[in-house]
Amino acid sequence: MPTLRLALSQVNPTVGDLDGNADLVRRWTRRAADAGAQLVGFPELMLTGYPVEDMVFRRSFVAASKAALDRLAADLAGDGLGELPVLVGYLDADGPPQVSVDAQPGHGARNAAALLHRGAVVATYFKHHLPNYGVFDEDRYFVPGDTLTVVRIGEVDVALTICEDLWQAGGPFAVARQAGVGLVLTINGSPYELNKDDVRLPLVRRRAAEAGATIAYVNMVGGQDELVYDGDSMIVAADGTLLARAPQFVEHLLVHDVPLPAAGEPTDPGELADGMRLVRRTVGSLPPAPAGPAAAGGVIEPVADEAEVWHALVTGLRDYVDKNRFPSVVLGLSGGIDSALVAALAVDALGPDRVVGVSLPSQHSSEHSRSDAAELAKRTGLDYRIEPIQPMVDGFLANLSLSGVAVENLQARVRGVILMALSNQEGHLVLTTGNKSELAVGYSTLYGDSVGGYNPIKDVWKTLVWRLAKWRNADAERRGQTPPIPENSIGKPPSAELSPGQLDSDTLPEYDVLDPILIGYVDGDLGRDGLIASGHDPAVVDKVLRMVDLAEYKRRQSAPGTKISIKAFGRDRRLPITNRWREHG
Amino acid sequence: MPTLRLALSQVNPTVGDLDGNADLVRRWTRRAADAGAQLVGFPELMLTGYPVEDMVFRRSFVAASKAALDRLAADLAGDGLGELPVLVGYLDADGPPQVSVDAQPGHGARNAAALLHRGAVVATYFKHHLPNYGVFDEDRYFVPGDTLTVVRIGEVDVALTICEDLWQAGGPFAVARQAGVGLVLTINGSPYELNKDDVRLPLVRRRAAEAGATIAYVNMVGGQDELVYDGDSMIVAADGTLLARAPQFVEHLLVHDVPLPAAGEPTDPGELADGMRLVRRTVGSLPPAPAGPAAAGGVIEPVADEAEVWHALVTGLRDYVDKNRFPSVVLGLSGGIDSALVAALAVDALGPDRVVGVSLPSQHSSEHSRSDAAELAKRTGLDYRIEPIQPMVDGFLANLSLSGVAVENLQARVRGVILMALSNQEGHLVLTTGNKSELAVGYSTLYGDSVGGYNPIKDVWKTLVWRLAKWRNADAERRGQTPPIPENSIGKPPSAELSPGQLDSDTLPEYDVLDPILIGYVDGDLGRDGLIASGHDPAVVDKVLRMVDLAEYKRRQSAPGTKISIKAFGRDRRLPITNRWREHG
Repeated sequence: MPTLRLALSQVNPTVGDLDGNADLVRRWTRRAADAGAQLVGFPELMLTGYPVEDMVFRRSFVAASKAALDRLAADLAGDGLGELPVLVGYLDADGPPQVSVDAQPGHGARNAAALLHRGAVVATYFKHHLPNYGVFDEDRYFVPGDTLTVVRIGEVDVALTICEDLWQAGGPFAVARQAGVGLVLTINGSPYELNKDDVRLPLVRRRAAEAGATIAYVNMVGGQDELVYDGDSMIVAADGTLLARAPQFVEHLLVHDVPLPAAGEPTDPGELADGMRLVRRTVGSLPPAPAGPAAAGGVIEPVADEAEVWHALVTGLRDYVDKNRFPSVVLGLSGGIDSALVAALAVDALGPDRVVGVSLPSQHSSEHSRSDAAELAKRTGLDYRIEPIQPMVDGFLANLSLSGVAVENLQARVRGVILMALSNQEGHLVLTTGNKSELAVGYSTLYGDSVGGYNPIKDVWKTLVWRLAKWRNADAERRGQTPPIPENSIGKPPSAELSPGQLDSDTLPEYDVLDPILIGYVDGDLGRDGLIASGHDPAVVDKVLRMVDLAEYKRRQSAPGTKISIKAFGRDRRLPITNRWREHG
Repeated sequence: MPTLRLALSQVNPTVGDLDGNADLVRRWTRRAADAGAQLVGFPELMLTGYPVEDMVFRRSFVAASKAALDRLAADLAGDGLGELPVLVGYLDADGPPQVSVDAQPGHGARNAAALLHRGAVVATYFKHHLPNYGVFDEDRYFVPGDTLTVVRIGEVDVALTICEDLWQAGGPFAVARQAGVGLVLTINGSPYELNKDDVRLPLVRRRAAEAGATIAYVNMVGGQDELVYDGDSMIVAADGTLLARAPQFVEHLLVHDVPLPAAGEPTDPGELADGMRLVRRTVGSLPPAPAGPAAAGGVIEPVADEAEVWHALVTGLRDYVDKNRFPSVVLGLSGGIDSALVAALAVDALGPDRVVGVSLPSQHSSEHSRSDAAELAKRTGLDYRIEPIQPMVDGFLANLSLSGVAVENLQARVRGVILMALSNQEGHLVLTTGNKSELAVGYSTLYGDSVGGYNPIKDVWKTLVWRLAKWRNADAERRGQTPPIPENSIGKPPSAELSPGQLDSDTLPEYDVLDPILIGYVDGDLGRDGLIASGHDPAVVDKVLRMVDLAEYKRRQSAPGTKISIKAFGRDRRLPITNRWREHG
């Protein structure tokens, strides 16, 4: 049985950075060549980054992506890497934009993969199954491919597939079996969701069984706006054996010697699954089989949920800040758990020198709100400042006749003005610190604590906020480091401190009651009856659902942040604002 | 040739208001019956409102829509209206949500129409062509129908179709010809775009020719978040003759006697277009042919573009405020043209008693900024107030060390805090007043003048702002009324007045240079080369494109507003924030 040394390049491209992404391919192909690889895979839409959304409609962008692909093929050859076949995702369009008198203008764009060899594109594949749920809109953007591409690489037949092709039964993997391939190389831009890695491995195993072939799965890594790609690249043998698996959230070159069946004479496969067609290509010459010991990529062990989420949030925040070229971030520190957690995430993502924390006490702020914030600053080493807001709040109160909630919100808004002024003056990105439970029930001030360009915990329920804080502190202790988050911030009852003695529990159910209802309603799309049937108190369900429905509008205004679940508030959750439908009694 | 008295009910439902929308159907069916109608049509997704977006995924909502349909059928019979066939759009699902181990959960939802007669659903049709561009995401939400429903109503064969079925060649209209129908009744939720009415009539004529049948087209009217439906319902004979056409932007019952061919014995149509199937249903009994003079719906004359846009903006604003149950609106009045235009729109939409205008002068505000705002208030009768901002601005400046843009933005943000405080205290919705040109180039202050829940002119280029102001004043003069907008607000050079002597033209090209570049780049998706080829100065193009690319982030934060073009900033324009692609040099 021939052995192919595969290299899966789990890298972090940036949307729109055609030159930078091509450079990434060249650098990692060099690393793969140095490791003796004979075939290299890069993620879905590697050259453009993913998702490119409505930039797909811009002809100049599609043309630039195709030109970048041709340049990359030539540059790889120029680098002396032409013998090594490289599979790379790019954006194609197979004709001029389609415009008829009747239909809306189309575009004919393709989510495409190209195999580069000896300075040229020797094979292409167009994604067959297009996802159109959650964050995905690919029916809007792409025309589906109807042809499986099988490339004879050396002695082995390799089928090329892209991402969603793996998530749906039938189609390319069934055709791959009919074509008798030994390997399916699948390139991916699969966003992280909590526990998605637990789903991926069984899925890849089912496809290996369906195709009767080894599956090499390479995924993107890094943050792109609200999405974070977790990598988790892997190789699974036809019998389901996990041969190699890369770590999550870091760039990684997974190099592994894979024994694969030598291809025989192609036979007529008969009628193909899903009405697909089949094309065959050949890459005759390869880098020689490497001498020396066999390459083994190793199998990474799964980590605890809290560790996984922590790395997702840190990755999403770091890439949002760095890819958008912000020098630093600023956030308000209330002494509470949410801002403490965001500060700890920011310090892990960027280092303490790039994080400014501002205590913004009012007359309602407790003594511990200042001391806990100061303690956090001391433990993490961030740039700590104090800006009392009362003089500015009093300026408004002297000129306007305000009472009740208007006065509470005013304090949050004065804080927002101060943080934005520091942003304008010093260049920081303002971080927002509302958790998903608060966002869901609208327990925040529009243009107040919702001010900011990015919210690392917008998809983190309050009960998970506490779990993450405890995990991060315990992890620090395990490493013999100072736990970053003051125990008092974790232990004290949550309060907005906008009026005397105020506690969250004055307005909201306790979070261990609230969160399960919200998770059922928001993430699970359970109705009122379903929630009550799950054992929740009907009166509490009605109260919570009423708050959620009223909060829809505020949610539309919230900053982007890292998505870790099926239903973050953002573009994967689309709801009308004007809407009279009410679940609650 | 038999004559059928058709009634097209161009009404204004609200998303989620199942009971209220059913009541609308009952009231308008009563009106149609009183007018002697023998067949009544209501818009697409009439019962749920449109678009319902991700509420489609909520099983309890789909179940409630189906239950509401059955209740409506019974209630119409109970009202004594059972003999009159009524076609109404609703949300269906033809089975339990589809969940497989591999695929993401689906739902099997249908964009459906039901023909109600004698207390029951006698025929249904599921939309065949699903739009998935611009504001539409129907591949995300619906399974396409594959069956044309033809109902023999009295002596006439009538095919049922829904909206996008009309916009694409082939499919239902081709099958309607094969089935030999006399009438196609098409129900629509077709959002307004500038000049779309000029496209619709030729389109309906092409479909009439394709089907070889009369087309009765009924469209929704009214505002739903960023969309506004313009009605424009019409009846076009098989030979292309426009028989009747309803006005735009108002609820209207279009009643017209239509001569239609009597149906013969159904013949075998052979293989049907687009792989569709055909079902036939019968409604044998109808209300009797009315005595007395023939009903003629009349043909409304087209109006000027400015009038059309004005009514679209007024409708969108009014429905956003009323459907969300805001008692009133508040906005800042700078004396400039944008806020003056928004104030005039708001007074037209809501009446002067529901509009609060606040002059918020700073030390940089000119004398005319106050006098022009006061003059506007006097002319329109809105509730006028003055809140000087300098004391509050000084409060921040005394406590923070700010300069340059940070000081400019501070003033805009203090204004935002004041408007939001008035909103909290008195219940007004805050209106935002940035035009599309400003939004496109980021010439606004995030959390400053961008504060607010709704922006009536977010899709109005600055040059169109001036045209609308002049049109509204001239229209008032034609009617012998006071022109609402002070001539000085129209004539003076635009300025943000955030620093001494500041003018827009210090930073931006003149608007008659800027707008054509923006229209080409944003609405037309032209690239840099295309813009230069159209004759624009390359240096100006590069400057403008640079501003637009930098402004992407701010745009994501902007308030919803009425969409009047293909590419408003909002959910129909999806762009990554983190993005390195740059057109400009």
